[in-house]
Amino acid sequence: MPGKTAEEMALDQKEISVAEFFEKNRHLLGFDNPAKALITVVKEGVDNALDACEEAGKLPHLKIAIDEKGNNKYNIKFRDNGPGIVKEQMPSIFGKLLYGSKFHSRRQSRGQQGIGISASILYGQLTTGRPALITSRINENNPPKWFKLKIDTMKNEPEILEEKELDDGFEPGTEINIVVEGKYLQRYHSVDEYLKQTAIANPYAHIEYRNPEGEEYDFKRAAHKLPPEPKEIKPHPYGVELGVLVRMLKKTDSNKILSFLQNEFTRVGRTSGEEICRLAEVDPDRKPSSLKHQEQEAILNAMQKVKIQRPPTDCLSPIGSDLIRNGLEKEIDAEFITSTSRDPEVYRGNPFQIEVGIAYGGELMERENEKVKIMRYANKVPLLYQSSSCAITKALEKTDWKRYGLEQPGSTGTPKGPATIFVHLCSTWVPFTSESKESIARYPKIVKEIKLGLQECARDLQRHLSKKQKGKKEKRRKKIFSNYMPLVLENAVELSGQGQELSIDPIMERVIDEELVEKAEVGEEDE
Amino acid sequence: MPGKTAEEMALDQKEISVAEFFEKNRHLLGFDNPAKALITVVKEGVDNALDACEEAGKLPHLKIAIDEKGNNKYNIKFRDNGPGIVKEQMPSIFGKLLYGSKFHSRRQSRGQQGIGISASILYGQLTTGRPALITSRINENNPPKWFKLKIDTMKNEPEILEEKELDDGFEPGTEINIVVEGKYLQRYHSVDEYLKQTAIANPYAHIEYRNPEGEEYDFKRAAHKLPPEPKEIKPHPYGVELGVLVRMLKKTDSNKILSFLQNEFTRVGRTSGEEICRLAEVDPDRKPSSLKHQEQEAILNAMQKVKIQRPPTDCLSPIGSDLIRNGLEKEIDAEFITSTSRDPEVYRGNPFQIEVGIAYGGELMERENEKVKIMRYANKVPLLYQSSSCAITKALEKTDWKRYGLEQPGSTGTPKGPATIFVHLCSTWVPFTSESKESIARYPKIVKEIKLGLQECARDLQRHLSKKQKGKKEKRRKKIFSNYMPLVLENAVELSGQGQELSIDPIMERVIDEELVEKAEVGEEDE
Repeated sequence: MPGKTAEEMALDQKEISVAEFFEKNRHLLGFDNPAKALITVVKEGVDNALDACEEAGKLPHLKIAIDEKGNNKYNIKFRDNGPGIVKEQMPSIFGKLLYGSKFHSRRQSRGQQGIGISASILYGQLTTGRPALITSRINENNPPKWFKLKIDTMKNEPEILEEKELDDGFEPGTEINIVVEGKYLQRYHSVDEYLKQTAIANPYAHIEYRNPEGEEYDFKRAAHKLPPEPKEIKPHPYGVELGVLVRMLKKTDSNKILSFLQNEFTRVGRTSGEEICRLAEVDPDRKPSSLKHQEQEAILNAMQKVKIQRPPTDCLSPIGSDLIRNGLEKEIDAEFITSTSRDPEVYRGNPFQIEVGIAYGGELMERENEKVKIMRYANKVPLLYQSSSCAITKALEKTDWKRYGLEQPGSTGTPKGPATIFVHLCSTWVPFTSESKESIARYPKIVKEIKLGLQECARDLQRHLSKKQKGKKEKRRKKIFSNYMPLVLENAVELSGQGQELSIDPIMERVIDEELVEKAEVGEEDE
Repeated sequence: MPGKTAEEMALDQKEISVAEFFEKNRHLLGFDNPAKALITVVKEGVDNALDACEEAGKLPHLKIAIDEKGNNKYNIKFRDNGPGIVKEQMPSIFGKLLYGSKFHSRRQSRGQQGIGISASILYGQLTTGRPALITSRINENNPPKWFKLKIDTMKNEPEILEEKELDDGFEPGTEINIVVEGKYLQRYHSVDEYLKQTAIANPYAHIEYRNPEGEEYDFKRAAHKLPPEPKEIKPHPYGVELGVLVRMLKKTDSNKILSFLQNEFTRVGRTSGEEICRLAEVDPDRKPSSLKHQEQEAILNAMQKVKIQRPPTDCLSPIGSDLIRNGLEKEIDAEFITSTSRDPEVYRGNPFQIEVGIAYGGELMERENEKVKIMRYANKVPLLYQSSSCAITKALEKTDWKRYGLEQPGSTGTPKGPATIFVHLCSTWVPFTSESKESIARYPKIVKEIKLGLQECARDLQRHLSKKQKGKKEKRRKKIFSNYMPLVLENAVELSGQGQELSIDPIMERVIDEELVEKAEVGEEDE
């Protein structure tokens, strides 16, 4: 066996298109199997529509319909009332992977990679050979534009098969039709469940949905105002890496290092900028592109040492404690609901925030002896898969639920009981463990914050449960009291030797006075 | 809040380079933290060197040295005796992600994505700002070529900072120097361990290594012949998807469907080709590019129905049962070693093969009460991370180890005992769960095959353990026998009333005769 020479090997070397890469590795994008693929396609379409509506300042109204075409093929139709897409951008947005507006913006959004919707179209054409049909209209002054397109996988470029202007009769917004191989299930991991969870975390969205069985869902709004739009921020000095700093120094329009630091980073003012230069022993008037490697390194190190305020948090768009409660109330008929929205924190220079809700009892009692149901969210998007590798699951399993009144077989693990636990992480950059965005990487800082949020709600739950417990105990006491008191009184009367009858009623009235009871209990505890 | 219009949004939309994408998502490539990053860089360099040597038909000889540069920076140097790289290809191979020769070839290799080595260089420049230094020489007739290069992240293109021809004095092969931020650990997850495991699975490679502490390792060859080179195969009809078929029909040089099927797929001959056309109701003489959508679908469906032989398996390069045993013997001083190499199987049209080895006792006795050590491999590359999501771990945990003599607390899970379990999956396409290639997706067919392999070796282990158990019992018996026999004989002589002495020796000799003992035992079992 002689083997190949370097020259022979060179003939085989070539570029791999990113579309080709993900076509072969489609499980990385969430297209592992037909059931999951169907959910992934819906998820990508819904994410895009909600992001677009919010960015345009419109209350979202989405219509989703899934129709079975036979032979495990499904047509998925998305319709939104969003801002529409200008016709020049339509082919690239839908026909090119790694294309979009969110990757470079430091601001919370559902999409962040520019892969999702084009990957769904790629998956559709791979499994059914069908092109995508897209209609979009940006306003009443422009006609609707219609495209039939595929992705040229070998080039990662859109391939327009047909395009035309439509007559009037299409309200502004976007409609997408994709045919994919899938499998429709009605279980925990289902499109129905996915949309229900989406409705909970996005109570200002109106979502209409028809599943392949023809059942219609109408998730109405629980709030009629959009949350404040998240603002875009500049990078924070604590989260930047040398290679990125080098690139920024090269590209900047600032003429001096000092102005570069002030203009291109968040929270750097004149004083902190000067201190960075001083610590780095670099003249603040130097031209940014003139810095040598050691000087670049010195600036980076100085950046980490100077005390700089945390990044602003208006780049985040949390759901808010009240809306979480509303969302849960709307979808779950529970006896008790609590929620919290913690203060923002920072990991690797990226602001993030944790929100938690717990619903207990009521209709959940039928699952009393099962594990609690966990609803995981990242940037308002439900996460249905890969829970075992997720920071949320880890934090939940490490919480001592016995202290808060839930069963927890073993000292760690998912607790049991009639509860649903809702956890939301929002961030300008969610560290997902894979492109399919199903699980949040376990950064210690993130896990810790989630745990604190869980404990906060768990304490409320514990208070509710012990009150309930006390109520039960008290009822029992009262019952015993009212059973035996007449007897005691009767005997007391007899013993006293007086003939007149004593009524139990005024005594019982006092007993039933809640305040007295509680005071008595507190006294008991003090002993 | 008025929100943005479609026109305003269009201004933000742009292409994202794949280098930029992975820079921001570097955890997807195994650069989650400094300790793991160091191992990932070594892994990518070693994979590439071994692949190149094997493809060139050369027995690999690798030298790896890691030097600490202070401040958590490490210089990693790779040197191989491979075929070298022609100078025109050097910039792209090292300075461009998604570039290479292995993605499109249906043949077992360590690399398969064209990402690894350029990602390591990207990570190095991100964390240290340092360019990579690469020297390569293809043979004695060409001078060595030297490059200093970076990756232009925004374009995913090599940026050559300096290049030159070197004078003589550099033996053919390739040398790479990368400076990265890292953390050197001496634990289970360490570069030392990674290379030790690599040596076990690649016993025909000679690997020299110096760690940052200056300790030198010399993993010598246990075999002096390369395994047969894996052959490239064409796709198998059972594993193809509609989108890929459509593309093949469009690109083919064949003029007729029948010849297209025969030429572009493995295992399709005249008869099966004709049957596919007949079932699909497509004229075998039709021009491939003329097929309509329904006809393309019909061909695909027919392909799945016609009985077609399994793909050939010479595209695989298993280690082999003997070499696994040699590899384990070389690195572990165990009392018992067994191994197996199963027959190839197929998942989604991709051939794969499972190999298993178990080492027991000896130096492993010191870990008697711990969980067994598991060595996972894919295409001869050790997998150190993400074991919980791996098909190998799943198969191992689902095996009933108690039946085979190992402790297994709970009915499933990792067994305990003084054993090391080696599992290797080789395939033309390993379904990794992420780009960092640390864990094998749990295809049922793969999990089943691994379990069968484990059971095969476990039965050998069980036989060994029960023999050992029997041996112990037998020794005890012999001891009792030799202690009491003299007494019995003495008494027998006395009872017989005869004065002469009887010797025990000839009787003991017969007892010690192993064959007799064994026969006696078998007889015992039969009862």
